[in-house]
Amino acid sequence: ADRCDRLARSRPFEIVIVIVILANGIVLGLETYDDLTSADTLLHSLELAFRAVFVIEIGIRLAAYGRRPQDFFRHGWNVFDFVVIAAIFIPGLHGDSALLRVVRVARMLRLVRFSPGLRTIVSALWRSIPGVAGFLALAVVTLYVYGMAGWLIFGSTYPEEYGDIGRSLLTLFVLLSLETLPDLIAQGMALSPWTLVYYVSYVLITVNLLLNILIAVIVNSMEE
Amino acid sequence: ADRCDRLARSRPFEIVIVIVILANGIVLGLETYDDLTSADTLLHSLELAFRAVFVIEIGIRLAAYGRRPQDFFRHGWNVFDFVVIAAIFIPGLHGDSALLRVVRVARMLRLVRFSPGLRTIVSALWRSIPGVAGFLALAVVTLYVYGMAGWLIFGSTYPEEYGDIGRSLLTLFVLLSLETLPDLIAQGMALSPWTLVYYVSYVLITVNLLLNILIAVIVNSMEE
Amino acid sequence: ADRCDRLARSRPFEIVIVIVILANGIVLGLETYDDLTSADTLLHSLELAFRAVFVIEIGIRLAAYGRRPQDFFRHGWNVFDFVVIAAIFIPGLHGDSALLRVVRVARMLRLVRFSPGLRTIVSALWRSIPGVAGFLALAVVTLYVYGMAGWLIFGSTYPEEYGDIGRSLLTLFVLLSLETLPDLIAQGMALSPWTLVYYVSYVLITVNLLLNILIAVIVNSMEE
Amino acid sequence: ADRCDRLARSRPFEIVIVIVILANGIVLGLETYDDLTSADTLLHSLELAFRAVFVIEIGIRLAAYGRRPQDFFRHGWNVFDFVVIAAIFIPGLHGDSALLRVVRVARMLRLVRFSPGLRTIVSALWRSIPGVAGFLALAVVTLYVYGMAGWLIFGSTYPEEYGDIGRSLLTLFVLLSLETLPDLIAQGMALSPWTLVYYVSYVLITVNLLLNILIAVIVNSMEE
Ligand code: NA
Ligand code: NA
Repeated sequence: ADRCDRLARSRPFEIVIVIVILANGIVLGLETYDDLTSADTLLHSLELAFRAVFVIEIGIRLAAYGRRPQDFFRHGWNVFDFVVIAAIFIPGLHGDSALLRVVRVARMLRLVRFSPGLRTIVSALWRSIPGVAGFLALAVVTLYVYGMAGWLIFGSTYPEEYGDIGRSLLTLFVLLSLETLPDLIAQGMALSPWTLVYYVSYVLITVNLLLNILIAVIVNSMEE
Repeated sequence: ADRCDRLARSRPFEIVIVIVILANGIVLGLETYDDLTSADTLLHSLELAFRAVFVIEIGIRLAAYGRRPQDFFRHGWNVFDFVVIAAIFIPGLHGDSALLRVVRVARMLRLVRFSPGLRTIVSALWRSIPGVAGFLALAVVTLYVYGMAGWLIFGSTYPEEYGDIGRSLLTLFVLLSLETLPDLIAQGMALSPWTLVYYVSYVLITVNLLLNILIAVIVNSMEE
Repeated sequence: ADRCDRLARSRPFEIVIVIVILANGIVLGLETYDDLTSADTLLHSLELAFRAVFVIEIGIRLAAYGRRPQDFFRHGWNVFDFVVIAAIFIPGLHGDSALLRVVRVARMLRLVRFSPGLRTIVSALWRSIPGVAGFLALAVVTLYVYGMAGWLIFGSTYPEEYGDIGRSLLTLFVLLSLETLPDLIAQGMALSPWTLVYYVSYVLITVNLLLNILIAVIVNSMEE
Repeated sequence: ADRCDRLARSRPFEIVIVIVILANGIVLGLETYDDLTSADTLLHSLELAFRAVFVIEIGIRLAAYGRRPQDFFRHGWNVFDFVVIAAIFIPGLHGDSALLRVVRVARMLRLVRFSPGLRTIVSALWRSIPGVAGFLALAVVTLYVYGMAGWLIFGSTYPEEYGDIGRSLLTLFVLLSLETLPDLIAQGMALSPWTLVYYVSYVLITVNLLLNILIAVIVNSMEE
């Protein structure tokens, strides 16, 4: 157990695993090209090799915990690793079923574990969520109210965009990118110039909300 | 009055009302789907139940003020609540008239009242307005001057976009999203390459103004 | 002179002038509507009245300087006022010639003079220019180098966008809004996948430059 | 050597070189206009004059190092200058071959050397890279994972956009500009409303990542 522990924490061990994860990503990418089917068996062998390496890796990590393997599962990343690697042995997951590919793609997220920098960023992003949750809730209420108003105003004239609350919300979400602003305003003007009040107020309010989310995140990250 | 006051301030009371407001929102959303007409009577019964709950709620709040119900109306949110709930009893507001729906949608804004976080954000947004009012005034003057200039330059050639000051202002407002920049520049180039001076200067000046509004808001929110 | 000075600095005097400037703006706006030609004589009379007010205003201001009217021209805004108001009396500026309208539109900028808030903002915007001048110079060099490269790569294939350095610069300026990115990349891919290096590097470099201009402005305005 | 050193550091020397670099840029720009072929010999003579000036310039700089010309190459900018100027004498680089033009365009970057302001900005931009490298790595992992997921979901239905990992990555890179959001969402909705989860999560995650890159740069530049 002690030797496994030292091995699991050693630099060369980490480098080997990182290289295998990167190679796993490249192989996944190559498999998307149809004209590489001639290399299919090679790519499949590589995948089998990656699996072996990952199984050995997790075995070493588990062994490092000696007689208390249950402690291994106390860390989030260990659980993630175990699920992602063990999932391959679920019976029925064979060939190139979609789920198998999802599992293989998910392996790439394990890269984050091996970089202290990435781990810091991911946890910082995670911790910034509560600070903006209030703004997001307000944004959701605003979108919903405008969605209902949009359905009332445009529902019968433009059912494609505002036919029900789902379509209204989608239209208003996409409008946040400002991409559809010219078309929607032209459409609204054809109905009545008063619809400008709807669109102009929506853009001003949501842009202002997004701006304040930005500021909340900046202020938050400066206090740290 | 005392018991009503304690009840109105109690946690379970608030939770019930928040759930009813959320349910009210979901029912409003469901009503926008045509194929749910079979559930129409159910949705209508729910709406009647919501009304009853809200009337009871506001009754309890009013009763909490005991012999001085006029004090109830000293708080902005109480007035808003009263108007939104009492509006249903205006004679003539029956069936699914648009105004009735507006009132029912407006009820959703009552959510803000029940979340201290949202209340803080809304009042912060409100207080940030004076700080940017000067920039907004300057933006309006800039838009108006460019609107007049746009009408002088393009009015006769492109009446659709610059036929009068109203259309010019609309064209320039939409241009703030940069969506229409390629088309407008192409249109201008067809008239004269000098129109580039108009568009490039407009974009640089307004982007600069918007940037400074952003900075004013950031600086303002940091000083707090 | 003393009475004129007191009058020129008095609050009612300022309010009257601001209202006349705003009325001047509204009249200019109304004149852009063709169907208001029946009110043409009214609008023209109003314009004549505005002129009279502005001439009297500048007369009072000049008189306030007593025997040293040359001191009047020591302040930038006074010079601007004088030019804008005196320009009407240039012989040949009659009817609704374009230049006359330009002069009448320029009058609206006089609003800034009367608001201490707007004056502060305008001078702050003005002072922020040197701080970003370096970035702008770098942006111009970057645009020019990419413009030359674009002409070398795409000049013969897409003369419409990159036929000469002028067109290249215009294409790249409009690309800063990211509006034309999908089309230009598709166009480039049709030529060679290597053109991606051109567009991706351009977008990353200029977005980074614009970002740093933003930061320079923020840092600058915080130090004040 | 001493006189050369004093000359190379003198103000008039710098001004002459800056003017010649700017003139070099203008001549390059003029050459892109086909209808200026009548002035071809003039432009060519100017180019020969520029070459002479640059060769003399670099000769003076080299001579300034006296008996230790190897020290000249210790500074990055000196090496860049030497390469850019000497490249013209590579045999085979004649006429208006593309490489010759690249060299002539590259000369314009020498402007940065002569402006302390630009030099500061360029080195600041350079130093800001490590601070955002972690975010960029995370952005690349995110793009790659979404690219694989996009290929799994849309690969067979929309081969144009998601046919292989290369196309997926390109589609997702362009989507960062939000330009193609409406079209891609409409395309996805035609397949299944569940594809919204893919696009909405992608936009929220990447916008959040870009935002945090922005914040990292701001915080970084404030600490300096
Ligand atoms: Na856009
Ligand atoms: Na856009």
